Amino acid sequence: MKLGKLLHRGKVKDVYETDNPSHLIIKFRDDITAGDGAKKDKIHKKGYYCSIISAKLFKVLEENGINTHFIKLLKPRYMLVSKLKMIPLEVIVRNIATGSIVKRYPFKEGEKFKKPIVQMDYKSDEYGDPMLNDDIAEALGIANKKELKEIKRIALKANEILKKFLDKKGFILPDIKFEFGIDENGKLVLGDEISPDTCRLWEKKTKESFDKDIFRKGRSGVGKAYKRVAEIIGDKI
Amino acid sequence: MKLGKLLHRGKVKDVYETDNPSHLIIKFRDDITAGDGAKKDKIHKKGYYCSIISAKLFKVLEENGINTHFIKLLKPRYMLVSKLKMIPLEVIVRNIATGSIVKRYPFKEGEKFKKPIVQMDYKSDEYGDPMLNDDIAEALGIANKKELKEIKRIALKANEILKKFLDKKGFILPDIKFEFGIDENGKLVLGDEISPDTCRLWEKKTKESFDKDIFRKGRSGVGKAYKRVAEIIGDKI
Repeated sequence: MKLGKLLHRGKVKDVYETDNPSHLIIKFRDDITAGDGAKKDKIHKKGYYCSIISAKLFKVLEENGINTHFIKLLKPRYMLVSKLKMIPLEVIVRNIATGSIVKRYPFKEGEKFKKPIVQMDYKSDEYGDPMLNDDIAEALGIANKKELKEIKRIALKANEILKKFLDKKGFILPDIKFEFGIDENGKLVLGDEISPDTCRLWEKKTKESFDKDIFRKGRSGVGKAYKRVAEIIGDKI
Repeated sequence: MKLGKLLHRGKVKDVYETDNPSHLIIKFRDDITAGDGAKKDKIHKKGYYCSIISAKLFKVLEENGINTHFIKLLKPRYMLVSKLKMIPLEVIVRNIATGSIVKRYPFKEGEKFKKPIVQMDYKSDEYGDPMLNDDIAEALGIANKKELKEIKRIALKANEILKKFLDKKGFILPDIKFEFGIDENGKLVLGDEISPDTCRLWEKKTKESFDKDIFRKGRSGVGKAYKRVAEIIGDKI
């Protein structure tokens, strides 16, 4: 499979055409950003590890009945996926209160929610990814009520599957962000990546972060943490 | 009816006990605030006019089957109401895009929504009234899903009733904020006030503001505008 035209350069990933018009290749770069890109750096081999973690988590979801864009990891950093028309939503499922939600509302840091909370943000650098509700998402033409319900249902199911899988590997999943798209057949499909860039992972024993919070909080060791997650959960390359 | 103990001093209204433990008196003061109290002033007779407008709009709602806390206007500024346990929500119904929603999302100023949008903010000075979704409202213990659905249903119905009434009086209702509480019998009841402080009112002919936006935008004539609204829609005192 050859890299075709660069279709899109994101903050940490590039998207290329392939010789199959239904397929794309996602290249995971070593960039890391936080605060809507306000904070930036490069972490040696970060893209390498994120692609391995992401491939494994997509596989786990597929095995459990979730439709994802994942086809295969061509080699570390290079993921073959189905082409989707992306929906500009960040669908965040929260199991434990941490991060922005404890700043915005009176939840206690580390508080476990009785039921997972689904939050949808409008993916827009220009508007700073503001939170949506269903009425606003519908008025913006992002998705109708039925589609929003389906998106939430799949996000909650994917959260349950990954929580269970990660628990067995020694990790807690406080929260996770999903992005969805529509494939060529009009089917709603989970896209983007699933990695320590897009979820929080706490080691069960120590409650230590093995995710982008290490970088957000200006601590060192983010590359080492991502490598550790890839070693624990990833398939042998 | 005598003013009892001052129970609560709000930004623009005082709430007093009465000799009936089920009733309260709301006193409408002349204060006006914007930006969560960052901007403040006093407008001569503002409370007088707001109480007249509010009394009329509550009456219109009651006549159309909405349960409100309104009992009667004892005299301008002094409104007798049922005692409610307030729910810390600002329930905003939007018919036309203006104000914060056009800053936060890519809606066009003055754009008419196909269907009214309901937005719920968490009423909290400490947290700056952040927007909620149903999951977060439920997790905060503000209301359960069934109650939230009922709150939205009543807010939408009240919006329709007031839109129709105000249209006949020559005004457009771009948006309106409602607050709800639970009465002694456990019934969900519309509370607070309904005035140019809590909704936008545009004159149909000129599209000119007859509401707090005059003050928010630092223009003069806010007192005159409120007086005009009271004269047009209010009952004779």
